[in-house]
Amino acid sequence: MTNFTYRNPVKILFGEGRITELGSEIKAAGYKKVLLLAGGGSIVENGVYDIITKSLKDNNILWQSFWDVRPNPELEHANNAIAIIKEHDLEAIIAVGGGSVIDEAKAIAAGYYLKDLWNAFEGKEKIKKALPIFTVLTLSATTSEMNPYAVLSNSEEKKKWAIGSPLLHPRVSIIDPNVQMSLPWRQTANGGVDAISHLLENYVAGSDFEPTKAIIEALMKTIIISIDKLKINDQDKQARADFAWATTLSLNGLTALGMTGEWAAHTMEHSISAYFPKVAHGEGLSVLFPAWLTYAKDQNYDHFTRWAKNVWGVETPEEGIAALKAKFKSWDAPTSLDDLKISEKYIPKLAQNASMQGKVGMKWKLGIDELTEIYKLALH
Amino acid sequence: MTNFTYRNPVKILFGEGRITELGSEIKAAGYKKVLLLAGGGSIVENGVYDIITKSLKDNNILWQSFWDVRPNPELEHANNAIAIIKEHDLEAIIAVGGGSVIDEAKAIAAGYYLKDLWNAFEGKEKIKKALPIFTVLTLSATTSEMNPYAVLSNSEEKKKWAIGSPLLHPRVSIIDPNVQMSLPWRQTANGGVDAISHLLENYVAGSDFEPTKAIIEALMKTIIISIDKLKINDQDKQARADFAWATTLSLNGLTALGMTGEWAAHTMEHSISAYFPKVAHGEGLSVLFPAWLTYAKDQNYDHFTRWAKNVWGVETPEEGIAALKAKFKSWDAPTSLDDLKISEKYIPKLAQNASMQGKVGMKWKLGIDELTEIYKLALH
Repeated sequence: MTNFTYRNPVKILFGEGRITELGSEIKAAGYKKVLLLAGGGSIVENGVYDIITKSLKDNNILWQSFWDVRPNPELEHANNAIAIIKEHDLEAIIAVGGGSVIDEAKAIAAGYYLKDLWNAFEGKEKIKKALPIFTVLTLSATTSEMNPYAVLSNSEEKKKWAIGSPLLHPRVSIIDPNVQMSLPWRQTANGGVDAISHLLENYVAGSDFEPTKAIIEALMKTIIISIDKLKINDQDKQARADFAWATTLSLNGLTALGMTGEWAAHTMEHSISAYFPKVAHGEGLSVLFPAWLTYAKDQNYDHFTRWAKNVWGVETPEEGIAALKAKFKSWDAPTSLDDLKISEKYIPKLAQNASMQGKVGMKWKLGIDELTEIYKLALH
Repeated sequence: MTNFTYRNPVKILFGEGRITELGSEIKAAGYKKVLLLAGGGSIVENGVYDIITKSLKDNNILWQSFWDVRPNPELEHANNAIAIIKEHDLEAIIAVGGGSVIDEAKAIAAGYYLKDLWNAFEGKEKIKKALPIFTVLTLSATTSEMNPYAVLSNSEEKKKWAIGSPLLHPRVSIIDPNVQMSLPWRQTANGGVDAISHLLENYVAGSDFEPTKAIIEALMKTIIISIDKLKINDQDKQARADFAWATTLSLNGLTALGMTGEWAAHTMEHSISAYFPKVAHGEGLSVLFPAWLTYAKDQNYDHFTRWAKNVWGVETPEEGIAALKAKFKSWDAPTSLDDLKISEKYIPKLAQNASMQGKVGMKWKLGIDELTEIYKLALH
């Protein structure tokens, strides 16, 4: 029997022109002074910043901008943001960007009420309160816009760890897929890999629960088809919309119900990021997933046979994994540690780092030996 | 481009033994005196009533029971419930039952604050406030447990109409599929027909939006497989769980995103209920859907070809519709007005009644002529 608890109260405004509604949403929620958190200047170039600030002005909302969130957001930057919120008595956070910006916004939202933000990541301090978060998504990949999780890097301690709390669900998330038209292909493809990898983390261990398995397969196919279309024409509006929503559903709780989330490849990828911070999350996952599935399939052969048939239209798990790898390659994503220029000598360090919080995964408890084996499968 | 707004804050407790948590959920929400709304005595027979009242006692919550909600819940009964809530200063409503009980609970929750409850159904009074609703689902069919809609019958005026408001989302819904083990086969099958018909109402007009189409197809297949399994063994726990969750997802908003909800067959079914109140909702739909799809397919042939392939594994819309009708028959559901013993002479009345609120549907605006044609297609 499948038992679970599910609640996802995030309000989604999806589609063309919805960003103009940001100010009225914040006003309706009763906030007047906000932090506007963002990454680099791309939101200035693509016009999103102008739309947002106009919407805030029109609703008499004051904002303090705070820029330069990194692709792997950093503890120090989050702590600096908390100081600014306190200095200016800000009441809420607007995250404008992709998963990194939204993740850091969540860390800030929780950290504002904590003695020490990193304590929450170490499990030493509980999140009991958080500032309200509003998001404007500019890159579909992580589903941070519709879930209560955040990943932050503590580069000093080479840790890239996660927190989660129902208090960290954004209040409102605005998804206008059109603003993603100007993304470089590499980022679109990484987003596709990331979303597929989230679906796979929940799917890999199998389950008797038919609805979630069927939904995961449906979303996986939708993402593959839409990224394939965007490879041909990155201005395909319908494909952008299809991809954006399928990706938002990939990790918003729905696809975890009745499943055993493994998160082994993610833990292994976080170790790569810790040593090689320039490797994008999607790139690390693209390398690790074919290897991790190759390890996992033998222990769950029937389930992977179903996956091969339903998602790839092939007969065996081996063919399915080969199809996945070929698909990632066709999207110009790296599929080996070689491609990332990470040599075999780093594997002991990576395996050590990945097991820092104990054995990895739920169904298969991976220790250093198994992690080493999977990293080795990813070598070439 | 696909634009939509989505928010569904209902907290779901799913699985075996979760009903015992009802009292603590209500206590945590701060309520101490509640109305316990139910239909017939089946919840006494299957033990659900004992579990609930023990859970309430354990949490020092006082309740007033109010029984006899009808399969097509009645305005008068709802108004009587409102009087009891006022008399006893009750603060919240627990609905224990299927969609009828939950729908009436929503009407009561809204009506408590209205001058005249039926006014809201007529569109003459706006729902601005509602009592909190907690539900314990005992029959999966309508998704009322996870949506903000309610249908009520005003038998005096032969009207079976709907209301909807974000205020009518239940706070918490408990779904223990095991309590559905004791249902008569007819009710299980009607639930399957109802859920499939909800998916079809959103699917029928087609859409360019790939994620929702794929999810609808996945859920439709899941429901068909699980009802087939329950036909063989109605004590199949996994099939009960699969069916229950797929059904809850069928009309919780998710499957409407980017789609044009037609609701033509439902409107036509409500007219059957208005004249033949003993016809169960699922029975009316089982009769009307093959007819309605036969009418609709010619105007959306490619879309129905896809449906035939993806859901039924056949090549043409005609074959798909035949497969649907055969499936409903195999579940012992009626598939013609003949089966319901409704003769042709009633068709003018039914068509008249169905168009009482104006033309029916969104993509195809069905007037009396078209409605008559569809009822005629349903004759044999």
